[in-house]
Amino acid sequence: MAQVKIGILGAGRIGKVHAENLIRRVPEAEVVAIADVRREAAERCAAELGIPRAYGDPRPLLDDRTVDAVFICTSTDTHAPLIEEAAKAGKHIFCEKPIALDLGAIDRALATVNRAGVKFMVGFNRRFDPNFARARELVAEGAIGRPHILRITSRDPEPPPLEYVKSSGGIFLDMTIHDFDMARFMVGDEVIEVYALGSVLVDKRIGELGDVDTTVVTLRFASGAIGVIDNSRRAVYGYDQRVEVFGERGMIRVDNPRLDTAVQSDAQGDHATRIFHFFMDRYTESFVREARAFTAAVLEDTKPPVTGEDGKIPVVMAYAAKRSLEEHRPVRLEEVARGG
Amino acid sequence: MAQVKIGILGAGRIGKVHAENLIRRVPEAEVVAIADVRREAAERCAAELGIPRAYGDPRPLLDDRTVDAVFICTSTDTHAPLIEEAAKAGKHIFCEKPIALDLGAIDRALATVNRAGVKFMVGFNRRFDPNFARARELVAEGAIGRPHILRITSRDPEPPPLEYVKSSGGIFLDMTIHDFDMARFMVGDEVIEVYALGSVLVDKRIGELGDVDTTVVTLRFASGAIGVIDNSRRAVYGYDQRVEVFGERGMIRVDNPRLDTAVQSDAQGDHATRIFHFFMDRYTESFVREARAFTAAVLEDTKPPVTGEDGKIPVVMAYAAKRSLEEHRPVRLEEVARGG
Amino acid sequence: MAQVKIGILGAGRIGKVHAENLIRRVPEAEVVAIADVRREAAERCAAELGIPRAYGDPRPLLDDRTVDAVFICTSTDTHAPLIEEAAKAGKHIFCEKPIALDLGAIDRALATVNRAGVKFMVGFNRRFDPNFARARELVAEGAIGRPHILRITSRDPEPPPLEYVKSSGGIFLDMTIHDFDMARFMVGDEVIEVYALGSVLVDKRIGELGDVDTTVVTLRFASGAIGVIDNSRRAVYGYDQRVEVFGERGMIRVDNPRLDTAVQSDAQGDHATRIFHFFMDRYTESFVREARAFTAAVLEDTKPPVTGEDGKIPVVMAYAAKRSLEEHRPVRLEEVARGG
Amino acid sequence: MAQVKIGILGAGRIGKVHAENLIRRVPEAEVVAIADVRREAAERCAAELGIPRAYGDPRPLLDDRTVDAVFICTSTDTHAPLIEEAAKAGKHIFCEKPIALDLGAIDRALATVNRAGVKFMVGFNRRFDPNFARARELVAEGAIGRPHILRITSRDPEPPPLEYVKSSGGIFLDMTIHDFDMARFMVGDEVIEVYALGSVLVDKRIGELGDVDTTVVTLRFASGAIGVIDNSRRAVYGYDQRVEVFGERGMIRVDNPRLDTAVQSDAQGDHATRIFHFFMDRYTESFVREARAFTAAVLEDTKPPVTGEDGKIPVVMAYAAKRSLEEHRPVRLEEVARGG
Repeated sequence: MAQVKIGILGAGRIGKVHAENLIRRVPEAEVVAIADVRREAAERCAAELGIPRAYGDPRPLLDDRTVDAVFICTSTDTHAPLIEEAAKAGKHIFCEKPIALDLGAIDRALATVNRAGVKFMVGFNRRFDPNFARARELVAEGAIGRPHILRITSRDPEPPPLEYVKSSGGIFLDMTIHDFDMARFMVGDEVIEVYALGSVLVDKRIGELGDVDTTVVTLRFASGAIGVIDNSRRAVYGYDQRVEVFGERGMIRVDNPRLDTAVQSDAQGDHATRIFHFFMDRYTESFVREARAFTAAVLEDTKPPVTGEDGKIPVVMAYAAKRSLEEHRPVRLEEVARGG
Repeated sequence: MAQVKIGILGAGRIGKVHAENLIRRVPEAEVVAIADVRREAAERCAAELGIPRAYGDPRPLLDDRTVDAVFICTSTDTHAPLIEEAAKAGKHIFCEKPIALDLGAIDRALATVNRAGVKFMVGFNRRFDPNFARARELVAEGAIGRPHILRITSRDPEPPPLEYVKSSGGIFLDMTIHDFDMARFMVGDEVIEVYALGSVLVDKRIGELGDVDTTVVTLRFASGAIGVIDNSRRAVYGYDQRVEVFGERGMIRVDNPRLDTAVQSDAQGDHATRIFHFFMDRYTESFVREARAFTAAVLEDTKPPVTGEDGKIPVVMAYAAKRSLEEHRPVRLEEVARGG
Repeated sequence: MAQVKIGILGAGRIGKVHAENLIRRVPEAEVVAIADVRREAAERCAAELGIPRAYGDPRPLLDDRTVDAVFICTSTDTHAPLIEEAAKAGKHIFCEKPIALDLGAIDRALATVNRAGVKFMVGFNRRFDPNFARARELVAEGAIGRPHILRITSRDPEPPPLEYVKSSGGIFLDMTIHDFDMARFMVGDEVIEVYALGSVLVDKRIGELGDVDTTVVTLRFASGAIGVIDNSRRAVYGYDQRVEVFGERGMIRVDNPRLDTAVQSDAQGDHATRIFHFFMDRYTESFVREARAFTAAVLEDTKPPVTGEDGKIPVVMAYAAKRSLEEHRPVRLEEVARGG
Repeated sequence: MAQVKIGILGAGRIGKVHAENLIRRVPEAEVVAIADVRREAAERCAAELGIPRAYGDPRPLLDDRTVDAVFICTSTDTHAPLIEEAAKAGKHIFCEKPIALDLGAIDRALATVNRAGVKFMVGFNRRFDPNFARARELVAEGAIGRPHILRITSRDPEPPPLEYVKSSGGIFLDMTIHDFDMARFMVGDEVIEVYALGSVLVDKRIGELGDVDTTVVTLRFASGAIGVIDNSRRAVYGYDQRVEVFGERGMIRVDNPRLDTAVQSDAQGDHATRIFHFFMDRYTESFVREARAFTAAVLEDTKPPVTGEDGKIPVVMAYAAKRSLEEHRPVRLEEVARGG
């Protein structure tokens, strides 16, 4: 297999990003088909990007013997069933996060994947951001020794539509989940307990839907290291994504990249150009590298760098944070995993 | 009164810093006497700095009618009794933090000060650091609107002597106390609840003494804003003192000043000079401005910018954090204040 | 014309960059043919990128009625003749810099272009770099008022092969030429006189070939503004490309972007990741934006943003700098233009 | 001699700065007298700072046997005669720059100093700025190998009074002279030729007085290294003082320190506090270190770090720059030294 033949499931925003990246920037991949329940979306995307086949249903794509792997980019509720079907059809699977909102469904999907022996990777793209990847590399090399304190700041430029808030499962499941993954990735250790604080400071209507828009979650790692994540649904200055790891021999900080390096000086001081506003712009490169990593794992028959377990644990952490907020106490992950 | 005549109580490290600053950099102050139970320390200091009178006991200094104000720079356990005596002698009082480790003693000292009607100011010098002061000014002007998230990083370059750890009351009372004050100062709001995480990662012996060396404390403010403080007893790269306030209209960050602005570029990248290692170097200017602020309050008969209440609340917060760590749950300040 | 049909002349490094960018990142362009005197190079490139036709000679490409525009990416000595032929064939022309090393040849080529009435644009890609473009935008908006001082630093990571030095025309024609263009672009004014200093400090063999490897060129603008360019053939820390414009109301500085934003702190200080090493990586985005700008000018029938005159003047400046270095005196551009 | 007994000549701005620094921050110095032709200025300063003796004439101070050293802080035209008198009186001499505007007068003064065998140091305080001093230290240690290119930016926040411009000798003698010294200091090599460009862009009246307000001066060093200095009489954003040394193994840059480290982020980007506006604030520390260095050289009987020759050469460079501007050609220093 010199090229991985890929089918895209879902022709929405993220499906198109993956299709385009695979076609233009991953020479080892060939996108041979795309499916979407909105057939015309699949067809429009196929026409734009030159994808040979377009379907209004995932079935024919999964039945296509020439397809080696699928990218599951559909709505969250369909992830688990599609994983199971794709696994049974012997396709390698790249699945957008989260695998599912139900822990039982995640377990069943992962069990099916295991039995089928196909490659499986979850789309925690931020691990592939060149800035965070470099920081992790330094930590893994021992540049700062044993990690002691982790700080993650992750703030959106503006709140999602209220409709989305209603169905997303809440801030911990739709937003902090990325940071939960980043925490495990960056420190290279498991979190055993979380404690969550939350407030409604950005938009009252978010509170009326039972969610919060501003949170701080502290993490206790197995090693004794301590982590803290802060989230806001609205940072007026842009999409704020920073990480800091402090350890016995030093510290690594990853700051936000800027749109450009121009700095203007006047009597008020120095003015640097703003940071990115949209996650697609901020994380452009991470999606490409993620797709390359999955393709390489398929071609070289190696373990993909983000596993099914990596897909599950942040969901467990999100439920633990949710319970912590509700019950106003620290919650151990095993309490949730047991109950899940 | 064109100049405030000041007596220094305590000729140790911090007493000498105040004496020297008052003499060299506060033209509105005149240091007329210094007392220390180690008489020769007082005499040596007087000789070095040209202070007219030196005593081996605070009494004659407090009896001296020409003394307008005292700087209490003695060991913590003597602060409260000296405050009471000085207040009764009609002296204005600048007292190093903490007022006392016992909340009852603090209350009694402050009551005496109130009855005496003298000026009273507590030495939370970091408020006067030009960097933090500028940040607070911006927050107070509304530059970022209502504060939502506060982050304080405060890490020492190396652990104090174990002897000190034994008697200091623990990390929350000797180290985080500064950050508790900074949190209230920076946000301009009261904390109602704290939750503390702690680990022993730097030095096992600190753990054997019943203390931790690495902590993260989260703060819930009355307004709903959330704060987080992280502390470590050892940052190999220096004395790390940073603050970030995030709000509805933006963010203000205060980074560490460096020893110099030289940056070296080579094939590995860019290398900037390290930050300060010693708190005296990092906060040189803050001590001067603090002394000026106290002197000005006395001369102009205004309320000093750090009050007795400001001196008490961080101690309450420290006890709440201690209890939180012991009982492994969030603790409201009123639980401690009641019990105190 | 919804898409511009483009033929690429030259399948070397820069030809391939343009072909790839046009195909993948300029939807308004369609690459229909590529020609190279090394026919197999053209064919290999066509195969890799899916270009329909490949030729071993520019003629058939220029004869192809379906081709709207050409990108001239061949060796410098063939630029002028190919411009003339393409213009006569009615093709719009994008030409890599320099148009020619001979000023008479440049004039003849531009005259032919004018008579033919085709679009013509020269490849000074750095104008399209997002960092420099933003700086120019700020200057043009009047953010700093009238420019007074311009500083350009432009240093290569390593010297070119000695073979290249022999035939390039020297440092001013192969390296500083970009900075001469940047100077005119950034200030928005014409240079009337230059003075060049040069030394051989990097590699003696460069000196033996009659060239220098380290230069500083000062520029006198018509407005009285003063510019200075410094060049080195070897900056061990990478490809150093900076610009600063200082004016009556402030300053704008463009610093080098870095590979990533990770910063490591240890007892020696803070260590930031290095800058780019290779011009292709540093200027990736500028080539895409340049190709888009040319395509847009053709589609919308507007004047391309880099004209023939813009292509000629930096060559004049390079000859003036060369003469200045040889004659050890300031040289006015009109001395060279007259003599050219 | 445990302390150097110092007399201050000149009670103007810079005289007071030195007096205050010596008294407050140089324990090895004792200021015993001050003299100024405006007797009341000397007396006021003595009263303020507690200097025992004040004179309306330098003579009694120079006759005072207890005075070990003098600080010459009078107007430039009196420097050379006072140096000669002080040297004859056996006093060690610290003299503000420039020694004189007349090269012959400089030579005579230095000859007298040599004959008298007293210590002599010229006040090029910027060498003692912690930022520049660190950069020089790195260069001297070989951190960047052999220097190839030096860039100095030195811009004042606003032009001096026109009266001052009339008598100062012009921009090269009153402003660039500091940068000429910095160039020699930073590179550790001698300049052999200069070329100056100048314009009147800030204030027409400066031009009417025959001076320029914006200049770029290039320097050819004996080693082949090339330097460039740019000056402006008005940088609206503050007192801009930067240096960059580029060499075979890397680069060192010194940027402007800021008033504080607070950075504000909003939708427009990041806003850092402005730099210093006044040279006294920017160079506070350098004056103290300079005074310490002189005092140490006297006490330890070592060569002061800024010699008479160091005082003379920048004046020669200034005259060479002046001639270069007038004659519109590069000028060798030896042309001026011969003619001087």
